[in-house]
Amino acid sequence: MSLPKQVRIIEVSPRDGLQSEPRHLTTDQKVELINELSDCGFSQIEIGSFVSAEHIPQLADTEAVFEQINLSHTVDYSALICNQIGLDRAITCGIGHIALFTSASESFCQKNIQTSINGSLKTFKQIIQKAHDEQFIIRVYLSCAFDCPFEGTIKAQNVVPLVKYFYNLKCDEIVLADTTGRATPLAVQQLIELCRNSVPVEYIGVHFHDTYGMASANIFSALESGVQQIDSSIAGLGGCPFAPGASGNIATEDLLYMLHSMNIATGINLQKTVSIGNKVSAWLHRKNQSRISALMLH
Amino acid sequence: MSLPKQVRIIEVSPRDGLQSEPRHLTTDQKVELINELSDCGFSQIEIGSFVSAEHIPQLADTEAVFEQINLSHTVDYSALICNQIGLDRAITCGIGHIALFTSASESFCQKNIQTSINGSLKTFKQIIQKAHDEQFIIRVYLSCAFDCPFEGTIKAQNVVPLVKYFYNLKCDEIVLADTTGRATPLAVQQLIELCRNSVPVEYIGVHFHDTYGMASANIFSALESGVQQIDSSIAGLGGCPFAPGASGNIATEDLLYMLHSMNIATGINLQKTVSIGNKVSAWLHRKNQSRISALMLH
Repeated sequence: MSLPKQVRIIEVSPRDGLQSEPRHLTTDQKVELINELSDCGFSQIEIGSFVSAEHIPQLADTEAVFEQINLSHTVDYSALICNQIGLDRAITCGIGHIALFTSASESFCQKNIQTSINGSLKTFKQIIQKAHDEQFIIRVYLSCAFDCPFEGTIKAQNVVPLVKYFYNLKCDEIVLADTTGRATPLAVQQLIELCRNSVPVEYIGVHFHDTYGMASANIFSALESGVQQIDSSIAGLGGCPFAPGASGNIATEDLLYMLHSMNIATGINLQKTVSIGNKVSAWLHRKNQSRISALMLH
Repeated sequence: MSLPKQVRIIEVSPRDGLQSEPRHLTTDQKVELINELSDCGFSQIEIGSFVSAEHIPQLADTEAVFEQINLSHTVDYSALICNQIGLDRAITCGIGHIALFTSASESFCQKNIQTSINGSLKTFKQIIQKAHDEQFIIRVYLSCAFDCPFEGTIKAQNVVPLVKYFYNLKCDEIVLADTTGRATPLAVQQLIELCRNSVPVEYIGVHFHDTYGMASANIFSALESGVQQIDSSIAGLGGCPFAPGASGNIATEDLLYMLHSMNIATGINLQKTVSIGNKVSAWLHRKNQSRISALMLH
């Protein structure tokens, strides 16, 4: 299959990138980050989450961040929620796009959101109905879509029904997330081809961590299967900074480099993105994981 | 296309991995390295080069290394040569497999081996004839097969005739080498598909540097096009350690992890390979570039 001519990148650094960092950015820094991302040409940015401040203090100021950014008409801003309280906060805040989070692994679901997969589907069904009433765009993260830290390989046959479930509930995007970084390009191909039998491929996004160095291969495989929306995070932010060898999302800069080298349009300025990645890495006292950024520095 | 069931890995760390390292391994260390690689199950190891000791002092002891290793009947040992003197040394030494080095880029050829592409083809024609008389297995590296540091993108149409040239001279392997790390999985697909019109795919090997994080994507693309021989280097050795951000060959450990995860057999023990990679990295006072090794340590 020929590769798509254009890809939409969902920049997740303000949420997934910051949520487990030991250093917290100030509200002003987050606002600066998001405004600059917007200037780069990103059309979709996940700006934070409406979850317990006790659980994720790094993102406690999401309302303030959303209030203070220069809203651009060309950017779709989203925030993660995981329950009804989160949805209420999203409504009050006025953001137009929410992201829900569940898992294709029973064990991961239990440990992360303290319910079974079926339990989370039931809860989300109500939330989704209310979100539709409020005319939200709805994104669903399906974590452990390929592999689970507790269960190992997740069978594609178990993932497809979940994808269909959220499609039937008229969610707008479902994101197959490789939480452990152990997805292979072959598994990506197999899962997406299977999903395509049930839902339009335009509906499917991918989210890869580069822990085992396979993110670029997985993204190429997803592109070959027709996927046109990819999550990434500037400077490769995300993952657990305390686990040596662990790694965050694929660096947006490197993803842009790969896509642009294959003449796939993104509408995003690479050079500006590199500058922001360097700035945020300095703020966080964290090594910039982007290879292209390292090469441009020298 | 379905992926191959089995892949042959050519371990290039004793040659490509060591040739630009500031610290030199002793002959004993090299012998230990190669013997342990052989124990791991590698069936092809590039053990050194017969080039000027002045030019590459790191590999000046290749004869001694070959004399001292425990020769295994299951391993094919090769060494790089670049001229008639090198071939004579290979004959004297008794190794059965040589690797020649030329380039698909005119500028790179001029700067690296001080001749034009055509000049190198003429020189190599004579060497290859003599090597055939001596019953050598012959491997040819085509550097800058995708991209050149001086010329940028190299057109596939310019590479295919070189591949055919060496095929017609009955060389046994031609290796498409991505010297800059800027090959994309799309370019890999295009070049290999084009080569397949002229030569059997079994004849084609690939050699990817991970400088831009695209090696795993490029390898997956090559596998999809039917390639069954891949170069790699334990601990990601190779590249210039003085250039921050630059990167060596894809780490054998990570390649094994990816292939085995896709049920592609290599015959190589990953755990043992990780141990050797850690040992050699310590010898060289160099950070092990393998992600799987870093994850196994913790």
